[in-house]
Amino acid sequence: MTITGRTRVFLVLGDPVGQVRAPEVFNHLFARHGVDAVLVPAEVPPAALPGFVRQVLQARNVDGLWLTIPHKSAVVPVLDHSDELARAAGAVNAVRRRADGSLEGALFDGIGFVKGLDHFGVPLAGRRVLVVGVGGAGMAVAASMARRGVHRLSLFDATPGRAAAAAQALRSAFPVDVQAPAALTLAGHDLVVHCTPLGLKAGDPLPFDPVALDPGCTVVDILMTREPTPLLRACEARGITAHPGFQMLLQQVPEYLRFFGLDRVADAVEADPSEAAALLQHAPALQPA
Amino acid sequence: MTITGRTRVFLVLGDPVGQVRAPEVFNHLFARHGVDAVLVPAEVPPAALPGFVRQVLQARNVDGLWLTIPHKSAVVPVLDHSDELARAAGAVNAVRRRADGSLEGALFDGIGFVKGLDHFGVPLAGRRVLVVGVGGAGMAVAASMARRGVHRLSLFDATPGRAAAAAQALRSAFPVDVQAPAALTLAGHDLVVHCTPLGLKAGDPLPFDPVALDPGCTVVDILMTREPTPLLRACEARGITAHPGFQMLLQQVPEYLRFFGLDRVADAVEADPSEAAALLQHAPALQPA
Repeated sequence: MTITGRTRVFLVLGDPVGQVRAPEVFNHLFARHGVDAVLVPAEVPPAALPGFVRQVLQARNVDGLWLTIPHKSAVVPVLDHSDELARAAGAVNAVRRRADGSLEGALFDGIGFVKGLDHFGVPLAGRRVLVVGVGGAGMAVAASMARRGVHRLSLFDATPGRAAAAAQALRSAFPVDVQAPAALTLAGHDLVVHCTPLGLKAGDPLPFDPVALDPGCTVVDILMTREPTPLLRACEARGITAHPGFQMLLQQVPEYLRFFGLDRVADAVEADPSEAAALLQHAPALQPA
Repeated sequence: MTITGRTRVFLVLGDPVGQVRAPEVFNHLFARHGVDAVLVPAEVPPAALPGFVRQVLQARNVDGLWLTIPHKSAVVPVLDHSDELARAAGAVNAVRRRADGSLEGALFDGIGFVKGLDHFGVPLAGRRVLVVGVGGAGMAVAASMARRGVHRLSLFDATPGRAAAAAQALRSAFPVDVQAPAALTLAGHDLVVHCTPLGLKAGDPLPFDPVALDPGCTVVDILMTREPTPLLRACEARGITAHPGFQMLLQQVPEYLRFFGLDRVADAVEADPSEAAALLQHAPALQPA
């Protein structure tokens, strides 16, 4: 990659930002596919975020932003337009400038998750799904499944009121049966998606005991760590099919590329995701999206 | 160069910015000397400049800015501190953030010019110097020579009043005899520096006729073009020693590096400027600084 005065620029905004893998992944893809563009990190303090986003996109060769923790929801008030999933989940992964100068955001976390289900051959149509934990990632996942169409979506969160608010937001956005039971009930679901941070720290309790799952239920733990999470190991020990979150991350790569008009590169990554997968798998610390 | 989440970021701001060579030159030097940093272009419209500069430097890993046309003077009101040459010339080449968050600018154009004179063995002490054209580049050159100490500095500009204002600014800043004669008089000078744009376009008239120069006078044309400028050719035809502006550009490279705390790389470039020179010489269109 040679950066010249004509190179298009993208930034990934986080705080901290040292752990992000996007520069390695996307700069490699840009170089590999002859795209004269570069993605650089920007460690933006939360208080500076609105001004930073508005101003940095004033530069004509700055074509867009990646947003990561803690900026994915905080950036929403700055935007003029957001896609359906971003509005439902109240968060975006990326921002681009339209021709008229207005700012547009999109959310890919949930799309990545649903494409990951497709990859694993896990069907959604007609299924009863439970999402455990509806923070940013859980809400993105739930919104994408609501849009895709499930028979019934149940949301649970240990923070009182959080699941009820999330269910209300999803009901307003999508024609789907969304419930927010007060207690965590595992039985009666075909798919259970774990979206809390439990399992990131050594000694964390299991978010739930897989023994209470219906036979034939599938579990996805979106927690992204190098080793299988305690929940995945507990499921496997009980013969329950359980998938890690890595595909959710990998499947988002072409979504970013398409959002920024790099369809040719997105097509190439979808045809052969091995390079992108290798770059992501070498992450020093995979984090929930 | 591999850009990660931990890479430090610099931007070069211009409008247009496609012609800048700084990314090629400095990214090569960063990679060559193991500096985990990247310089990317930003095409910032003039109206957006103040907000852009303030906001982009809020990112903790954005360590500084390069400024080029038309932003070198326009950025000055945004700054909290400027060095002596920047204040005298009313322009900066670079901006960095101090530990307390305040913004500091510095001007290297004139330093590069004076270091270029050293390179060519052209003395300044006790000399009578004429600067023809006191726009941004001419003013930077004049300020650096005023600071270095010359016997007498004469400024001429075809725009009425411009040379007188420049002379007044330099007199306030440096203890030097600065004059602004109403007419261009070449005789009586040991060194004449050409700083107008005449010679950039085919068919431009000579800025002055070298026949009127004193014998033994030295001419420097800071106009940076691939081929010798018409003025340089006219001087050579009359046996007058004349130097091109390239050294002015090259000699600034270590100044930027030191300003941003990269003294080790600056030392290496000064010890062997051949790499930096090769990168600069391949510029598609060398421009006046």
